[in-house]
Amino acid sequence: MPINRSITREYIGKPIRCKAAICRKSGEPLVIEEIEVDPPKSWEVRIKILYTSLCHSDLTFWKLDPSVPFAGFPRILGHEAVGVVESVGKYVEEVKEGELVVPVFLPNCGECRDCESTKSNNCSKFGSKPFLGMPRDGTSRFRDMNGEVVHHLLCVSSFSEYTVVDVTHLVKIAQDFPLDKACLLSCGVSTGVGAAWKVADVEKGSTVAIFGLGAVGLAVALGAKQRGASMIIGIDLNQNKFEIGKQFGVTDFVNPSTCKEKSVSEVIKDMTNGGADYCFECIGLASLMEEAFNSSREGWGKTVIIGVEMHGSPLTLNPRTMLRGRTITGSLFGGIKPKSDLPLLAQKYLDKELNLDGFITQEVDFKDINKAFDYMVQGKSIRCIIRMDH
Amino acid sequence: MPINRSITREYIGKPIRCKAAICRKSGEPLVIEEIEVDPPKSWEVRIKILYTSLCHSDLTFWKLDPSVPFAGFPRILGHEAVGVVESVGKYVEEVKEGELVVPVFLPNCGECRDCESTKSNNCSKFGSKPFLGMPRDGTSRFRDMNGEVVHHLLCVSSFSEYTVVDVTHLVKIAQDFPLDKACLLSCGVSTGVGAAWKVADVEKGSTVAIFGLGAVGLAVALGAKQRGASMIIGIDLNQNKFEIGKQFGVTDFVNPSTCKEKSVSEVIKDMTNGGADYCFECIGLASLMEEAFNSSREGWGKTVIIGVEMHGSPLTLNPRTMLRGRTITGSLFGGIKPKSDLPLLAQKYLDKELNLDGFITQEVDFKDINKAFDYMVQGKSIRCIIRMDH
Repeated sequence: MPINRSITREYIGKPIRCKAAICRKSGEPLVIEEIEVDPPKSWEVRIKILYTSLCHSDLTFWKLDPSVPFAGFPRILGHEAVGVVESVGKYVEEVKEGELVVPVFLPNCGECRDCESTKSNNCSKFGSKPFLGMPRDGTSRFRDMNGEVVHHLLCVSSFSEYTVVDVTHLVKIAQDFPLDKACLLSCGVSTGVGAAWKVADVEKGSTVAIFGLGAVGLAVALGAKQRGASMIIGIDLNQNKFEIGKQFGVTDFVNPSTCKEKSVSEVIKDMTNGGADYCFECIGLASLMEEAFNSSREGWGKTVIIGVEMHGSPLTLNPRTMLRGRTITGSLFGGIKPKSDLPLLAQKYLDKELNLDGFITQEVDFKDINKAFDYMVQGKSIRCIIRMDH
Repeated sequence: MPINRSITREYIGKPIRCKAAICRKSGEPLVIEEIEVDPPKSWEVRIKILYTSLCHSDLTFWKLDPSVPFAGFPRILGHEAVGVVESVGKYVEEVKEGELVVPVFLPNCGECRDCESTKSNNCSKFGSKPFLGMPRDGTSRFRDMNGEVVHHLLCVSSFSEYTVVDVTHLVKIAQDFPLDKACLLSCGVSTGVGAAWKVADVEKGSTVAIFGLGAVGLAVALGAKQRGASMIIGIDLNQNKFEIGKQFGVTDFVNPSTCKEKSVSEVIKDMTNGGADYCFECIGLASLMEEAFNSSREGWGKTVIIGVEMHGSPLTLNPRTMLRGRTITGSLFGGIKPKSDLPLLAQKYLDKELNLDGFITQEVDFKDINKAFDYMVQGKSIRCIIRMDH
């Protein structure tokens, strides 16, 4: 049965009562509860979520030690999604009721120096806002049935039938775009493809090394393949990832546990006759970032850091190995500028230049959302799509 | 009296006896002695040096602990120069007797994958050859009057009336190019200008921070000014460098010793409203490289490492500060491809787009070469030109 995309006008300006999957304690199963979602304030949009998917970053926030500054419980996780605009706050002109939108964790105000430049996707007006609430005032739009505030995640919080998102965190997409694929564009897949296309600018015939073959790493492979890379090496401790990776363009595989006395970078240098043209770190471990850098070719080797280092470990490089033309850079969301680039990626999918189908390994109903966590924890999923119960 | 550029054909194929300034012991004054210079072997060229200049790297090699692998005494230092071809070895077709040439420490074979690419100046065929001798066979072409081998420096060794250089380390320049300016192009000035133009690709209106205002740092400023940078901040412990820097385009100055409780990067962030667009490290200290990186703007800030770290210190970065679009890269010779780019820089000088005159602070005769060392050690010179006694 097709998902119900219709909206009602009866809650405009009022709180709406709906179901949300709440993370009440670090690492414990989410609890589906009734909550109240406030109407959107100025520059905000209330969205009826249709599909959402589980990204590895959700797992990171789910397991977060409650004592770290950006932890907060109870919280509504989820930041990959697609939905329909239910109502808009004052000053919102970009989207209107009934339109299909993809929420994104990265803001794009369109007015700051970064948003106006083609060189940055790091909106400097809204880039460093509170993690627990809305970007403009830091407060929450969610309350549970006891009236307790429920926190937001990354300005999206899509594990809820309704959510409120600032207009700077929204991208409008074509009404007929396939819903399950749309939510893939919301974070991980765009990050990987963007890193290959926009940050590294992978060239035809080049060699690529990808550290970590999760959804982001596989999306890097897909982007590199689409650009005509001649050799795409996947590096992962899970040997099964080679077969999976082949569907996305991975041509060669290194399992660090079988490298014996050689370092991974030595192995990659041997395979590529001196080092890969482009290296990508998609895990978030400082030691792997170093290995990625050391795997890159002298002369023009470029290493792109995508993984978010969560242990506070420093990245330690030998400055003399940098002198012969190596570069290391980092990006959020693969350098993708949400409002201008995401529609281009969507069009690439429609034009069959970017096959997103392979990323979806499971689909569960919203009531079974904890299964999505199980699949990811067990390493069984690339993306588990969660279908809302509308 | 103009320098004698004429050559004789009487020593072709034979050793030539001439004067050289030999570094016999670490840190001791050079000794002008008679030496014998072998005729060029295949792919080699014997050059009559006309002018040479002292670069800070010569000082580094002059003071080198004899126990490090690339140390060698006795040795002929000097790697910035201009000269006339006296004779050529077998297979040399690129230059002929009497032509004016600039030797360079960086090879450019023209045939390897790097030389063929526009993205690299890191000749991979000859890039990592012995530091003490000629690049193809590692042997020396110099002997002292006791028959003892005298070592080469960086494949150039220009503190000698005659030297032998591999053809991959030579660039032909226009016969009428001013000789003293020609030897500036041989290393430091080209490195700085190249780093601004080719590696960073400084844009009009951008902000620039330069750590270390020696010749290389001043050349970065000149390159950035020529590109239309709106703010060029020099960072140096020597306060006099501000006045000197102004001639090269430096608009603002930070003396780290007067920053009080703030770090240099915090001061630069304040001055530039969030960080400089381009940062350059021209000293070779890992801690300064880190400060340079931290001084760069999120979104698109690019840090270029030019200084050679000689203490074995690691470069330690916070990987999370890289995620918002910062880049760090390194280069030798400012990304300049000797044979194709150096003639372009020379033409910029002739077209009055690149004013090299300010770099020359002193000129001494070859017999007084130790004065050049004194000037540099005392911080009194940018470039001291050494005129050979022909």
